[in-house]
Amino acid sequence: MSYSPGLENVPATESSISTIDLEAGKIWIRGYSLEELAMECTYEEVAHLLIYGHLPDTRELNEFRRKLVDESLAPKEVLDILGMLPKDMHPMDLLKTGIAALSGFDPELENSDIEANRRKSVRILAKTGFLVGNLGNIREGGFRLFRSDLGHAANLLYAIIGRRAESWELKAFETAFILYVEHELAASTFAARVIASTMADIYGAVVGAVAALKGPLHGGANEKALEIFQYDVEGAEKFVRERLARKERVMGFGHRVYRRGIDPRAEVMKNVLAELCNRIGDDRLYRVAVRVEELMANEKNLYPNLDFYVAPVYKLLGISPGLFTPIFVASRVAGWCAHVIEQQAANRIFRPRAIYTGPRGQKISGRG
Amino acid sequence: MSYSPGLENVPATESSISTIDLEAGKIWIRGYSLEELAMECTYEEVAHLLIYGHLPDTRELNEFRRKLVDESLAPKEVLDILGMLPKDMHPMDLLKTGIAALSGFDPELENSDIEANRRKSVRILAKTGFLVGNLGNIREGGFRLFRSDLGHAANLLYAIIGRRAESWELKAFETAFILYVEHELAASTFAARVIASTMADIYGAVVGAVAALKGPLHGGANEKALEIFQYDVEGAEKFVRERLARKERVMGFGHRVYRRGIDPRAEVMKNVLAELCNRIGDDRLYRVAVRVEELMANEKNLYPNLDFYVAPVYKLLGISPGLFTPIFVASRVAGWCAHVIEQQAANRIFRPRAIYTGPRGQKISGRG
Repeated sequence: MSYSPGLENVPATESSISTIDLEAGKIWIRGYSLEELAMECTYEEVAHLLIYGHLPDTRELNEFRRKLVDESLAPKEVLDILGMLPKDMHPMDLLKTGIAALSGFDPELENSDIEANRRKSVRILAKTGFLVGNLGNIREGGFRLFRSDLGHAANLLYAIIGRRAESWELKAFETAFILYVEHELAASTFAARVIASTMADIYGAVVGAVAALKGPLHGGANEKALEIFQYDVEGAEKFVRERLARKERVMGFGHRVYRRGIDPRAEVMKNVLAELCNRIGDDRLYRVAVRVEELMANEKNLYPNLDFYVAPVYKLLGISPGLFTPIFVASRVAGWCAHVIEQQAANRIFRPRAIYTGPRGQKISGRG
Repeated sequence: MSYSPGLENVPATESSISTIDLEAGKIWIRGYSLEELAMECTYEEVAHLLIYGHLPDTRELNEFRRKLVDESLAPKEVLDILGMLPKDMHPMDLLKTGIAALSGFDPELENSDIEANRRKSVRILAKTGFLVGNLGNIREGGFRLFRSDLGHAANLLYAIIGRRAESWELKAFETAFILYVEHELAASTFAARVIASTMADIYGAVVGAVAALKGPLHGGANEKALEIFQYDVEGAEKFVRERLARKERVMGFGHRVYRRGIDPRAEVMKNVLAELCNRIGDDRLYRVAVRVEELMANEKNLYPNLDFYVAPVYKLLGISPGLFTPIFVASRVAGWCAHVIEQQAANRIFRPRAIYTGPRGQKISGRG
């Protein structure tokens, strides 16, 4: 077999969950365009599509929404544990510890059949949303309960900002939230499948995926994409030109799969940012984004990815940067769970080989 | 690129850490035979070889041994957290939660250069050994401190059995412990590298690897291999024949890479079991093992893997089955750390593709 570093372009599994269709400029989620799903559906509909394989009818949707609220409150022990950890611990590490701890409270932990994995997925989805929304609150000794009159994205935003969002705020937040939900074999999703392929439990697979998403080359990038939006248009242009002159990376641009093409998710979020700026009557962040996008296209032939347009939207919604990647988790966890369910339903353990570049036949001697 | 399910025989990375050399019937660890290392070295020497790339001289070995003791005690918060989790929580899930929590206490968490990763590896190795050795003790509200007059394997065994082991007990335990230390791209090691390839921190990579090792198709198998050793020779033969008649798997036999060949590690442990049985003057477990090995060779052309011969050795040492896989973690963590260090020193993110088998172009309609 030929060797492709980072397994670039190597098919690692078959999957009916999603695909990045570069020719069509689409991300298909079980056949539907992710961009359309983000604009037309609620997060619960898309999460249901991922976990159960189809969009829900009214009855299914109501039941799914109810479960996401009913199952959201984390056990007291898990809340206490998060409160005991160091105050400066990275939110992603708190979340990783919290989800690892949650596994001890799931009565179906060791049952990996499809239906049990789906039931656990709903619980993981609900409690991950609750933990992410309340990360800051728990550290201050409290939490906001999820409300049965709000959807999952609305509950998350409510827990974060401490008030019911306006409908236009929620629309911007939920669109971004849906766009993060699933993206084929991203490194975190691949990590989840590798872990699940040992037939380890789904919580463990999700914890490994959270660990991967923290990395600055993956989910950790969305927090970094914010840096440029502290400037005005001229300042941002100067900042970018200086980075390029030093041959440094500009965060929020480029992607392994899209290469020099356009990330269709970024296009959706560009419109969301425009509407949001319009609504609040201040278009600085939109002008900064457009100028930087032009500059990067002209200078480097690189195009923005999803993170680039989500960062200013989160900023306008008053979400603190430390929560950007945890919110990514709260959304993507539905995709991870779908991949674990699919993996374990027709499993084959991932066990590739390494090309050995070291010596052989050394003699043990001269040691201490 | 052609598709190989489970990435079987697909080269996923270059590595100078280890290779399974099927022709020579050897596992090379940075050039040395793992079987020889297990028989002739201490665990600290082999862990040093993995993390620093060479066997230690006397000064290096003394320093490394000292650090493994000095760095072993976990923060009080982490011990308290483990004490708060449910009494029936799986030891591997406790360990996963504990290592995730430890990340909050490492001052170099976000520094991924080689030397920082090595320093963190030593801390992870020390504290993982401490947590594994004390999993049972912590649940009862106490722990046994690691002692500066004992090596790492001896400290682990001391914490588990509550007394200083006899030299022949320690020899058997440490040989098995070293044999588990590294095995190329096993699913857990591969998971660690995938996570590390996002440039996420080494604790996260190790937590993901622990999650993978829990799986019954990977590390979780060593606990299951014990089942057969509850029988006498005739009972074991009957048990195996019945399983084969039902076309069920006999745990402890076969391995993706060795296929129908012999796992050289199992050969070493077969001798260890023989010596141990000889020493205690009861050879039942050895006779059971040999009979089952013959039977499986004749009936299925399958040969024992490492787990098959370690299980009876652990049983004779009085180690409870729930600790078999955690002890595997305490050893393999040195291999995982070596792989994370190597991955991040010359990184390329793992981002393969999926072969999409789902539909495209679905219209959103008729939903709730």
